[in-house]
Amino acid sequence: MQYKAITFVKRPIADITADTFELVTLETPVLKDGEFLVKQTHMSLDPAMRTWMQDNPNSYIPPIAIGEVMRSFGVGEVVESKNPAFPVGARVIGNTGWAEYVLGGADMQVVPHDLPVEALMCVLHVPGLTAYVGLFEVLRPKAGETLVVSGAAGSVGSLVGQMAKAEGLRVIGIAGSDEKCRWLEDELGFDRAINYRSANLAEQLAEAAPNGVDIYFENTGGPIQQVVFERMNRFGRITVCGMIADYNREVPAPGPSWVDINLKALRVEGFVIVDHYDKAPKAVEVLTGYLQKGQIKYRAHVLQGLESAIEGVNLLFNGDNQGKLLVEL
Amino acid sequence: MQYKAITFVKRPIADITADTFELVTLETPVLKDGEFLVKQTHMSLDPAMRTWMQDNPNSYIPPIAIGEVMRSFGVGEVVESKNPAFPVGARVIGNTGWAEYVLGGADMQVVPHDLPVEALMCVLHVPGLTAYVGLFEVLRPKAGETLVVSGAAGSVGSLVGQMAKAEGLRVIGIAGSDEKCRWLEDELGFDRAINYRSANLAEQLAEAAPNGVDIYFENTGGPIQQVVFERMNRFGRITVCGMIADYNREVPAPGPSWVDINLKALRVEGFVIVDHYDKAPKAVEVLTGYLQKGQIKYRAHVLQGLESAIEGVNLLFNGDNQGKLLVEL
Repeated sequence: MQYKAITFVKRPIADITADTFELVTLETPVLKDGEFLVKQTHMSLDPAMRTWMQDNPNSYIPPIAIGEVMRSFGVGEVVESKNPAFPVGARVIGNTGWAEYVLGGADMQVVPHDLPVEALMCVLHVPGLTAYVGLFEVLRPKAGETLVVSGAAGSVGSLVGQMAKAEGLRVIGIAGSDEKCRWLEDELGFDRAINYRSANLAEQLAEAAPNGVDIYFENTGGPIQQVVFERMNRFGRITVCGMIADYNREVPAPGPSWVDINLKALRVEGFVIVDHYDKAPKAVEVLTGYLQKGQIKYRAHVLQGLESAIEGVNLLFNGDNQGKLLVEL
Repeated sequence: MQYKAITFVKRPIADITADTFELVTLETPVLKDGEFLVKQTHMSLDPAMRTWMQDNPNSYIPPIAIGEVMRSFGVGEVVESKNPAFPVGARVIGNTGWAEYVLGGADMQVVPHDLPVEALMCVLHVPGLTAYVGLFEVLRPKAGETLVVSGAAGSVGSLVGQMAKAEGLRVIGIAGSDEKCRWLEDELGFDRAINYRSANLAEQLAEAAPNGVDIYFENTGGPIQQVVFERMNRFGRITVCGMIADYNREVPAPGPSWVDINLKALRVEGFVIVDHYDKAPKAVEVLTGYLQKGQIKYRAHVLQGLESAIEGVNLLFNGDNQGKLLVEL
């Protein structure tokens, strides 16, 4: 059977462009014992993809090889199987790649059919695990503290803010449009949302966090970073979860001076989610609890058709996505 | 009784200059019940003094007020007392300031007479506590790891390196002269010492740390910072203990991009010693153990006479001190 896939053919220097990828037609393999074939229904587009394209010897996973199918997470259904653990009809989640059909891999998990696919991809899988690890394992928030999250309307940021609200923190979100800010304040219950594009961020932040910032969940980098950094309280904690603003730059912008890290006894700590898959069961338990109590809402920005990923992935970097970016196949 | 003191009269913008201070003559007070008078014998000059001069609302302690006696630690002898806990003849250590006589304060501690004053001031007091907290509380080293320390020949850096050696780490020191580097390698047993002024630091560091750097103890800031930062291994830890190169700058230099903090899951954590005085008993116990086993050596750079502090304090910032800087009164 023939199917369409998108391969990665040219490492971008700065922005991802159409010639980064190539649309190809492939043939499904004949299954050996233990193998199974998945028809992908939904692909996840995530900012981390940009870092997987980079040939950075220090990165946490090998870069995507030239000519390989573009790497991504996704959900699909088993359509052919020689593996009893993954019978035909089972719904699976895992590393799929930009392809209509995928040979099932060891990392795939069977997931129940009755969960909405958006809940699965927006909350219970990578975004939820990322938000959980950054907030609870790295930042260790205390009720009453003030938290700022950048990329607040993104898949991770929106969960971080809602979980922090549920834990009794004052939550300030920074996002890139008035519409996103309204969503954060009116729908998700953030105490304040600031549109960094239209407002004087430093002034707005000083007003929104009159007692300073205890916790900063960093998703974006860029000029927001320095402004929030300057408002940090003594013993403040920062987690560097993402640096969207810098992923597309050939040379990343410098960070803040370490003088205040010294004098204010700050902790700045990064993480990448592949190091924390062992926390997934606990994260799913905690996130399910929030969902059941109605403390977490989510929204998906759904593109249609495999090829829509090629242009669509840039929505993550220009900030035009409204919610978790998905492709429905 | 009249005595000489040096007051702080002008906040420096960049370098500390002679007009930062004023030599004054004061009168010893008539003691009230509970008070005691200390004749200072040795004053400690420390890089942190530069930060105490700054009117930084975010700093960990209030800045030195204009007109106040310059703040410092020191050792002295009680010469008059209306406090039985501090009898005449007792040797004390604590906040003294730049003055020949000091009214005893609540922070002062009685210390035994039989300890050499250099061991007290170079190892067991602030430098030792600082090295102990940074290394064991913040960085949590493991045998076999590679540690880099900047300001390696300084009072804190030299202790950090020796303690790390005693704990089984590979230790690389960065210092500012060939003489200091020889001292670190030949006398203190560092695996390597690099003179950042004469060598190509990046090349030398790559050669000295072929498997990368796991731990960086930051005392200096400046261009060393970026070079070491780029060699950090995944899950590396950095403690920001001091930023000597930046204390005298009006606007501190930017730090490294946070992209690698994210991708390499680094932790960068600052501390100031005033938050950790509760660890002093444990630190003294640990440091005394190293001293008894001959695992820690030290050297003091001793200036003579109160006024020598005025010019002498700058030795800390141009790096011309050889060992812990003290003033003998």
